[in-house]
Amino acid sequence: MNNYLKYIKDDETIDDLQLKELQLIQKKDGFKFGIDAVLLSDFAQVKKKHEVMDLCTGTGIIPFLIYGKYNPKSVYGLEIQEEMVDMAKRSVKLNSLEEKVSFINEDLKNIEYLKKLKKFDVITVNPPYKLNNAGIINPNDKLAIARHEILCNLEDVIYAARILLKDNGRLFMIHRPERLADIFTIMRKYKIEPKRVKMIHPKIGKAPNIVLVEGQRDGGAYLKWDAPLYVYDESGKYTKEIDSIYWRE
Amino acid sequence: MNNYLKYIKDDETIDDLQLKELQLIQKKDGFKFGIDAVLLSDFAQVKKKHEVMDLCTGTGIIPFLIYGKYNPKSVYGLEIQEEMVDMAKRSVKLNSLEEKVSFINEDLKNIEYLKKLKKFDVITVNPPYKLNNAGIINPNDKLAIARHEILCNLEDVIYAARILLKDNGRLFMIHRPERLADIFTIMRKYKIEPKRVKMIHPKIGKAPNIVLVEGQRDGGAYLKWDAPLYVYDESGKYTKEIDSIYWRE
Repeated sequence: MNNYLKYIKDDETIDDLQLKELQLIQKKDGFKFGIDAVLLSDFAQVKKKHEVMDLCTGTGIIPFLIYGKYNPKSVYGLEIQEEMVDMAKRSVKLNSLEEKVSFINEDLKNIEYLKKLKKFDVITVNPPYKLNNAGIINPNDKLAIARHEILCNLEDVIYAARILLKDNGRLFMIHRPERLADIFTIMRKYKIEPKRVKMIHPKIGKAPNIVLVEGQRDGGAYLKWDAPLYVYDESGKYTKEIDSIYWRE
Repeated sequence: MNNYLKYIKDDETIDDLQLKELQLIQKKDGFKFGIDAVLLSDFAQVKKKHEVMDLCTGTGIIPFLIYGKYNPKSVYGLEIQEEMVDMAKRSVKLNSLEEKVSFINEDLKNIEYLKKLKKFDVITVNPPYKLNNAGIINPNDKLAIARHEILCNLEDVIYAARILLKDNGRLFMIHRPERLADIFTIMRKYKIEPKRVKMIHPKIGKAPNIVLVEGQRDGGAYLKWDAPLYVYDESGKYTKEIDSIYWRE
């Protein structure tokens, strides 16, 4: 076990993903993956023949979950912050997944770079979801970069997906319901048609606080609504639907 | 009571709205108002000083419910089908509401006519919600006109609302969740900003089948999601939330 220590730095920790014995290197006191990554990787529909790209991948949680759940042909993650990509690449070695999972340190706004990459069947993204309009955010704050639209905004993300998707390829995004008018409007602008929505509610009877959206590059207009998902039951425990997502392999 | 008969024709009936003793003339075997009208009039936020216009008003159910719930300064209804406007106008007389409720027989696509009207604080609309893409609809079928986009489509309705609303006035629409990408996109096109959404689910855990949307003319971008509403409980009866909407005066 001590052998694992060669992969991590003093301020890092190795977390068990509880899925196919996968492990992820994360900062001890930094951004840790949460329910968003688990919900998005469950919502995505990925086949074994697919090539998948995760944008705003951070330390790579979503590529590892996608690999663990679906075992597609290949999974990539793209991230602008060098330190996070370094951690993600060490997680690849830690899991001996060099043949399956890869990370790229690049700015998704670098469209000329994106155009040189291959095209993907599936794009996943858990973008920064807060508008960068407070004006009091430290641009060196890694947590802030993950949550606020500092280094990229919703339009940058959707434009990048347009460039990277194959014809009729699918974009799976997790975001906040407050931004759904923006999401639909910008997806239509870049001809990624909204095809499916799933709302996540903290409890039965409460307003939704997370939205999952599936879009299709040059897809026809028909929007399907999935059954909603409730995270906690009346006693404050995870509902059985959430339990089944966490433990579904 | 027999005195009421002077207001109706042989194929018509007088229905009690169970709200302030209001009554509505409807066809015995035609389009009858349902839960949509009740949900929309509850979702709308109307003050006593407001002037209200209901588009696609049919036989006038929504203007009468708005009058009964909020008693605003005035309520208008606009409808293209002459026969329905004739029924609505007879319902005005039946309820002795000539000072409060008025109906106009006009096509909402007649923008030059709309521009000559006064501006309104509130627009309500329960538009035809099915795309007219089946190609097998009889254009003389009044039920089909109420349900399919034959005589007007979503864009016509939102453009008309843009013309008729005061600055910062509010549009309240009931529609189908499948059309929400269209609704948001077209509202943004005509600068009616989506401000609030409420989803109606047939039961807890089922996908939504009705959506209520509030927009504001030239409003700022912030979209609030209301708590969802469930129509039926586990035993198939109306939930107490629905009961309270039906009986709230």
